[in-house]
Amino acid sequence: MSETLKRLAEVIESRKLANGGNPEKSYVAKLFSKGDDAILKKIGEEATETVMAAKDARVSGDKSKVLYECADLWFHSMVLLAQFDLKPQDVLNELARREGLSGLEEKAARKD
Amino acid sequence: MSETLKRLAEVIESRKLANGGNPEKSYVAKLFSKGDDAILKKIGEEATETVMAAKDARVSGDKSKVLYECADLWFHSMVLLAQFDLKPQDVLNELARREGLSGLEEKAARKD
Amino acid sequence: MSETLKRLAEVIESRKLANGGNPEKSYVAKLFSKGDDAILKKIGEEATETVMAAKDARVSGDKSKVLYECADLWFHSMVLLAQFDLKPQDVLNELARREGLSGLEEKAARKD
Amino acid sequence: MSETLKRLAEVIESRKLANGGNPEKSYVAKLFSKGDDAILKKIGEEATETVMAAKDARVSGDKSKVLYECADLWFHSMVLLAQFDLKPQDVLNELARREGLSGLEEKAARKD
Repeated sequence: MSETLKRLAEVIESRKLANGGNPEKSYVAKLFSKGDDAILKKIGEEATETVMAAKDARVSGDKSKVLYECADLWFHSMVLLAQFDLKPQDVLNELARREGLSGLEEKAARKD
Repeated sequence: MSETLKRLAEVIESRKLANGGNPEKSYVAKLFSKGDDAILKKIGEEATETVMAAKDARVSGDKSKVLYECADLWFHSMVLLAQFDLKPQDVLNELARREGLSGLEEKAARKD
Repeated sequence: MSETLKRLAEVIESRKLANGGNPEKSYVAKLFSKGDDAILKKIGEEATETVMAAKDARVSGDKSKVLYECADLWFHSMVLLAQFDLKPQDVLNELARREGLSGLEEKAARKD
Repeated sequence: MSETLKRLAEVIESRKLANGGNPEKSYVAKLFSKGDDAILKKIGEEATETVMAAKDARVSGDKSKVLYECADLWFHSMVLLAQFDLKPQDVLNELARREGLSGLEEKAARKD
């Protein structure tokens, strides 16, 4: 797996209250202390901001905000995964599984 | 970078119409043929479905749907990145940059 | 209450399966037949489309799409209300209650 | 139109900076002072909270939160409408127009 995703997942994991995360010093620990709803609201917010950033980028020609908001969206998805004791590797495995299936499907489709 | 993300980004890239993607055979090529709005709607949809899946998981105890919807959300983010000629590696770099910064900030904070 | 909201709420109510709504002939009856998740997905979708429409309107100068998407959002909120046996009048009462409170708060604030 | 919607639209209109709204005393004036993006983020947030409230209501049996979040969603839609110099009556007219059309369509469909 990507070293960045792995390291980031470890940092997020370390911010859980059970692992000594301090809500007064860490943003992620604060999200964990608030629970599911706070994390889920962030998923909704970051998705909306991604949509807005993409619209803005078409006007400004500057796509850095799309990148930035997409990073925010992935980051908060990783907090959600941790909240459910899931890992980015689980998502990557699921994506690999589909890509394999879809590769086969498309191959089959091309035979027609 | 993760081999899966890299391979998936390549598959998505190959589905662009300019690269021979066929909207009648490939879901991703169809999204590209519809343009920005179709992709952005999917970001909004998948975020909503992730929220619903997390709520359901707390009732059912089955968190596989959270994983599945999160994979959907990442997948469609990757289509959006490709639509703006960005790569998952750009997102990972941005996340690494922040993690580094935040690591330093938290270290500084712990000294207090 | 607004005659339009009242009549629309009645039409929506009549589309419930228990009231003879036919999922093959009516879009609303079809939503009811699919249940909560289908209706909630529409709330998420219409909110995203409202955001996109507002961004587009600033570029095109044509705000009719904002109006159209806002109508979609209110319409699907009314389907959700009906799904929970709530009425638009309940929402209006809640809004009136807050406006009264907020009116008082603002009056108090202005005295300072 | 509903007296509540009309009065609420007037209050919102009076909170525009051009009409003397004070961002330090009024929540709505503050939203107007921040502009489009702040209002659009609220649309996304309130839609997500409506989805969460509906999921919670199925577990708790208490649907008051659905009503409350739906009122929030309508309220912020009205701020968005005002931001584009549109009125709730415009939305009601659009809904009435559709209901008329759909009424005819459904009548036609029932003849089959």
